[in-house]
Amino acid sequence: MHQGSSKELHFNRENVEELLASGEFFWLDLQRPNDDDFEILRDTFGFHPLAVEDSEYFDQRAKVDEYDDFVFIVVYGAVKDEDRLVEVHCFYSERCLVTVHRDDAPAFDEVRERYEKRKEGIERPSLLLYRLIDALVDSFFPILDEFDDRIDELEDGIFRRADDAQLQDLFAMKRLLVGLRKAVSPQRDTFARLAGGIGELPGFTPDDERYFRDVYDHLIRISDLIDSYRDLLTGAMDVYLSTVSNRLNDVMKKLTVIATIFLPLAWITGFFGQNFGFMVRHVGSWEAFLFLGIGTEVVLIAMMLYLFRRRGWL
Amino acid sequence: MHQGSSKELHFNRENVEELLASGEFFWLDLQRPNDDDFEILRDTFGFHPLAVEDSEYFDQRAKVDEYDDFVFIVVYGAVKDEDRLVEVHCFYSERCLVTVHRDDAPAFDEVRERYEKRKEGIERPSLLLYRLIDALVDSFFPILDEFDDRIDELEDGIFRRADDAQLQDLFAMKRLLVGLRKAVSPQRDTFARLAGGIGELPGFTPDDERYFRDVYDHLIRISDLIDSYRDLLTGAMDVYLSTVSNRLNDVMKKLTVIATIFLPLAWITGFFGQNFGFMVRHVGSWEAFLFLGIGTEVVLIAMMLYLFRRRGWL
Amino acid sequence: MHQGSSKELHFNRENVEELLASGEFFWLDLQRPNDDDFEILRDTFGFHPLAVEDSEYFDQRAKVDEYDDFVFIVVYGAVKDEDRLVEVHCFYSERCLVTVHRDDAPAFDEVRERYEKRKEGIERPSLLLYRLIDALVDSFFPILDEFDDRIDELEDGIFRRADDAQLQDLFAMKRLLVGLRKAVSPQRDTFARLAGGIGELPGFTPDDERYFRDVYDHLIRISDLIDSYRDLLTGAMDVYLSTVSNRLNDVMKKLTVIATIFLPLAWITGFFGQNFGFMVRHVGSWEAFLFLGIGTEVVLIAMMLYLFRRRGWL
Amino acid sequence: MHQGSSKELHFNRENVEELLASGEFFWLDLQRPNDDDFEILRDTFGFHPLAVEDSEYFDQRAKVDEYDDFVFIVVYGAVKDEDRLVEVHCFYSERCLVTVHRDDAPAFDEVRERYEKRKEGIERPSLLLYRLIDALVDSFFPILDEFDDRIDELEDGIFRRADDAQLQDLFAMKRLLVGLRKAVSPQRDTFARLAGGIGELPGFTPDDERYFRDVYDHLIRISDLIDSYRDLLTGAMDVYLSTVSNRLNDVMKKLTVIATIFLPLAWITGFFGQNFGFMVRHVGSWEAFLFLGIGTEVVLIAMMLYLFRRRGWL
Amino acid sequence: MHQGSSKELHFNRENVEELLASGEFFWLDLQRPNDDDFEILRDTFGFHPLAVEDSEYFDQRAKVDEYDDFVFIVVYGAVKDEDRLVEVHCFYSERCLVTVHRDDAPAFDEVRERYEKRKEGIERPSLLLYRLIDALVDSFFPILDEFDDRIDELEDGIFRRADDAQLQDLFAMKRLLVGLRKAVSPQRDTFARLAGGIGELPGFTPDDERYFRDVYDHLIRISDLIDSYRDLLTGAMDVYLSTVSNRLNDVMKKLTVIATIFLPLAWITGFFGQNFGFMVRHVGSWEAFLFLGIGTEVVLIAMMLYLFRRRGWL
Repeated sequence: MHQGSSKELHFNRENVEELLASGEFFWLDLQRPNDDDFEILRDTFGFHPLAVEDSEYFDQRAKVDEYDDFVFIVVYGAVKDEDRLVEVHCFYSERCLVTVHRDDAPAFDEVRERYEKRKEGIERPSLLLYRLIDALVDSFFPILDEFDDRIDELEDGIFRRADDAQLQDLFAMKRLLVGLRKAVSPQRDTFARLAGGIGELPGFTPDDERYFRDVYDHLIRISDLIDSYRDLLTGAMDVYLSTVSNRLNDVMKKLTVIATIFLPLAWITGFFGQNFGFMVRHVGSWEAFLFLGIGTEVVLIAMMLYLFRRRGWL
Repeated sequence: MHQGSSKELHFNRENVEELLASGEFFWLDLQRPNDDDFEILRDTFGFHPLAVEDSEYFDQRAKVDEYDDFVFIVVYGAVKDEDRLVEVHCFYSERCLVTVHRDDAPAFDEVRERYEKRKEGIERPSLLLYRLIDALVDSFFPILDEFDDRIDELEDGIFRRADDAQLQDLFAMKRLLVGLRKAVSPQRDTFARLAGGIGELPGFTPDDERYFRDVYDHLIRISDLIDSYRDLLTGAMDVYLSTVSNRLNDVMKKLTVIATIFLPLAWITGFFGQNFGFMVRHVGSWEAFLFLGIGTEVVLIAMMLYLFRRRGWL
Repeated sequence: MHQGSSKELHFNRENVEELLASGEFFWLDLQRPNDDDFEILRDTFGFHPLAVEDSEYFDQRAKVDEYDDFVFIVVYGAVKDEDRLVEVHCFYSERCLVTVHRDDAPAFDEVRERYEKRKEGIERPSLLLYRLIDALVDSFFPILDEFDDRIDELEDGIFRRADDAQLQDLFAMKRLLVGLRKAVSPQRDTFARLAGGIGELPGFTPDDERYFRDVYDHLIRISDLIDSYRDLLTGAMDVYLSTVSNRLNDVMKKLTVIATIFLPLAWITGFFGQNFGFMVRHVGSWEAFLFLGIGTEVVLIAMMLYLFRRRGWL
Repeated sequence: MHQGSSKELHFNRENVEELLASGEFFWLDLQRPNDDDFEILRDTFGFHPLAVEDSEYFDQRAKVDEYDDFVFIVVYGAVKDEDRLVEVHCFYSERCLVTVHRDDAPAFDEVRERYEKRKEGIERPSLLLYRLIDALVDSFFPILDEFDDRIDELEDGIFRRADDAQLQDLFAMKRLLVGLRKAVSPQRDTFARLAGGIGELPGFTPDDERYFRDVYDHLIRISDLIDSYRDLLTGAMDVYLSTVSNRLNDVMKKLTVIATIFLPLAWITGFFGQNFGFMVRHVGSWEAFLFLGIGTEVVLIAMMLYLFRRRGWL
Repeated sequence: MHQGSSKELHFNRENVEELLASGEFFWLDLQRPNDDDFEILRDTFGFHPLAVEDSEYFDQRAKVDEYDDFVFIVVYGAVKDEDRLVEVHCFYSERCLVTVHRDDAPAFDEVRERYEKRKEGIERPSLLLYRLIDALVDSFFPILDEFDDRIDELEDGIFRRADDAQLQDLFAMKRLLVGLRKAVSPQRDTFARLAGGIGELPGFTPDDERYFRDVYDHLIRISDLIDSYRDLLTGAMDVYLSTVSNRLNDVMKKLTVIATIFLPLAWITGFFGQNFGFMVRHVGSWEAFLFLGIGTEVVLIAMMLYLFRRRGWL
């Protein structure tokens, strides 16, 4: 038998005592537990005070702490649409599984539904634990799968038009990856140890190793993906910088072309705009105007255009 | 005896039962298998449900899972012309080898032809498996060998004329390498373990170790190559950025030369274009025009050219 | 029983002899010890000369040196508001704990208060040592928690307006992280060893391992955080450079727009400012002025604006 | 006794059979072997077909393959003046040493001369192998020693005048290092294993370990050198980029100085060049010309120069 | 008893035979030894020819080679004021310690003085060796301590005014660090092995381990420092590049401001400088001059200044 969240169940000392007395294995999911809840964990369930104290503080490293008659596990999942992590603390013994979490854990819903539909209750305690942890671990995949598209999109955007929004995106993605990595790496190392020697922990059988090796395999793959995306983000940042430099180069070429054409032209018109009496008097004919005034300008423009074209600047 | 793809063979329950009953080792290659095929794998072949379930999902890490009477292997190859990976799932037992893959695997064709020409059938089961895996692993080499030339070409292109297309190329190559690495690294680690203790797996003999050590050697070399190319790509990106900066420098020098020559010239012509009655009246002779108008300009131009030449800007 | 700093206690040979004679475990905290204090450590306490000499020099690597009847521990903490490290040298034996430090150690105050309030004295020697080391290790967290906000703020500042102050901030933060890392890494490695085999050291029981594993867990987390922030700082530096390049691009576009509009305009006005007698005589009518003077300019401006708008530059 | 290359010796089946029959240890050096040569290796020498097949393909990873009665070794050397690698495949047994290589191996010449001068023939088989491998390994040093000077020169060149040739040089050196590293790293790892357990291989004695440890020491040093030069090249690339940026800054300052001086001057001359009848009529005296025409310009130039000098731009 | 350098001692065969005959442990320091000296080492001291040959070549990796009756050690120190390394080769046996070095080793002077003052001679052979190696190792600290200040200074300089000299400094420091690292890393690894099993080497007792662990601790700290400084140098290089880009941005803003103000102004003055008879005739009044000539310019300047101020560019 398993049980819903503390609210649905009217979680209280009496209920729990009843459940424990029934001798049947049950699952208790505590979301946003209060001080009374922790007291019940300590006094009624009889979990070690150090473990209960541990479970009160969030923001911990993933770990498996072995106690005499139960195991305390800290495990992380992710919620895709909100780009946030879910931290779950599990007390697992032969009598029951208690999961404690502060934030909503959508990964649990599917497992809960599955067991609610089942008539016969929980088939094997360790399998329930595996299903929950597996659901949490697999909740990293959607968030990572999305990365591929985001990096693609970003790259396209950079080549179309590099702006600050993309930089902010890049940094936000880097930040998210750093956060995911901080959650996943210790989890991977923890399950590496677990996959090897889970049979000796209270409440597990050697057969469970295959299941937890599966979890470990997924965690390695998640870890690989995170490293790949880090690599790609670094590459995207380099591309960004190079693209901006490239654009700058183009802009400067244009400016240089403009200046190179019009500064000499302006000088020539300036030259013939000088008030030298001699010049004013002697260049009055329309031939002079045609040859000196218009001719030089046309020749100059033609030369410039030829030069720039040959260099591939236009 | 070995068998072609599911289509050619009219792969169905009866055929398989016949084959299994024959007692002879056979190879079955399932491309794009459907749900019925997986059912046959589970029910008629008797492969463990967990392994069959595993084989239905692609995009896995390379691995070797040992079961009681068979081994489940996930292995990757590459297809050069399409720059894509091929993921193959193998069920290998003493009775048969079943390979499952979603995409076309050109690496298998050569092995298939070889056995089709052979009269005597499959000489040793593990040798067939080795040949297939070897073909898959070696299919990474052509795609990597091409990299050398592509990087060379890219570098030449960058020095000739740096543009966005090269950046896109660089990023695409980086992406491809990240993808190859993600496929090859777990494969290398898997075969490192395999090369050491393959004799204990079902269907293998200690003699097979030499063959799988050979596969492992190739995987290390592929891994080395990937790392080398990553290094070179990073270098190429640096070169790109430096080249663009260099070009910008050249453009700006040109602009500065133009501005430094023509701005002062324009000022002088502007000066003599002022409508000060005094100036208009007193600089009317042709000597004034020659000395002030043309002389100053010529002297200025000469000075500038001399200066720029000495600094090596022209 | 525990004792305050050397000043409060009138720390001298007689006092110490009395304390040692009492047979009760005590804590002695020596801040800024002088040569006499070290002599007492050597002669009255009987600590090994090598350890006492070691304790005189600060700026050491975190370590645990095992002697015959005591343990010499070098451990680091941090002080948040001053961004500095605290180095503490501990002599721990079954009779007493002597802590030596040069700088003020605020992390000790809380522990001291706790024990001053307690009536029954020190419950277990190794627990006191654990509390002190735990307080030191946990003093790294506030300084690191602040980093998150500082990097956020910095990033916002960079996107608003990149200046040298942010660069100096970035470098100062990098420097601080390098310093923290230098203190934390050896400490983490030391406690990794300690967490495994503390039961064999003088003055410890196997039960203490759980406590020191807790310290080790915290040190790994601190180490993870430092690595994460290094990553983010590197990212922020890249963002900085990219932002500055982006801004430069914008500035240059503006300059190019200005030059592209006004250089041709200036050339046209210059053209009609030339003193060719022919032109002066023939373009005197108001229609000429309207068409040639104002018309060309208006057409040119309109063309330019249309072009820039189409390219998204305005 | 040892033998020269296949050409000198009229290498054929009869000669080899004679040599093998003599019972004396001999060295056979095959350069650019043909298919017949490989057949002799397989049939007359009796080397394992897998090893002979291996020896036909070049571009392998350095390795030591142990067979029943011989060892197959792939080892690399370098040729300084041509910046290329030499790949040598060695068959080493108690009866003979056969070295196979495609390209010229200058490192062998010295060893060959040494043995040609010797009267007594080969003193100890393993010592000859050591001498050849040592000569190959040491051939990496000249090529690396040269790097130091090349980087120095490059850096000087960059500070004098940064151009594309240096970038090409940097990239070529990076490429060469990547290639050397790809050859040396596996070789180093191979000899690490060899230095530990060579006594158990056919044809070696435990005394040989010291010699092969020496080879291993050299390989580590080569590997260290390669890493150092990689580091320095990365540094040089950063310096390159920074120098170019620095130069750009200088160029832009010059342009800004020119524009800041001459644009206002041009404006003032333009101002007084306007055809306002009022102005033309009223600023006709020589004092007006002196004060307005020349005075404003001189004052402006003086102000600018003072400003730029104070900012250290001139 | 110990002995000075070869010059002071009239180092020759007879002296050495006397010393060896005395049975007392002695220290012999050979600086810039010649071929005769090496012959004495081989023949009179009886050191293994391979070790003596090794000691003739400098530029080796730090190492400890164990021979039957002596140990050959290569160890590095540094000389602060000259930024160079000192390589010392030690022959250490139960009878004597011979140190061979090519360059001056200031680190030895202090140890020599200490023993010259001592009346009783050398108290324990291994302690003398420890003192010498410790002095060499500690000679790295002054050179590294200086780095902190140099990086600080450099950073200040960069923020004040970035120039090529700082780049050269950065690269020189990087180079020095790469050199130090190349000397220190193998030394650290060597002493890691030594600290664990020194008791088994000839001439050492298990008690010596504590001393050599101390040397090892210092080497780790040196190695940590080198890594920290590398990190900071990389950061400084990034800061350099960013600062230069920042400055460039400022310069370009200035140029843009100048161009944006004066190009339109010049265009307006140019406009009214055109020789259109119509305009010349109709804008002759002083009001026209005031409104069109001076008015437009003043309005334009005011607008520009307002705009730039609002954008924070002035």
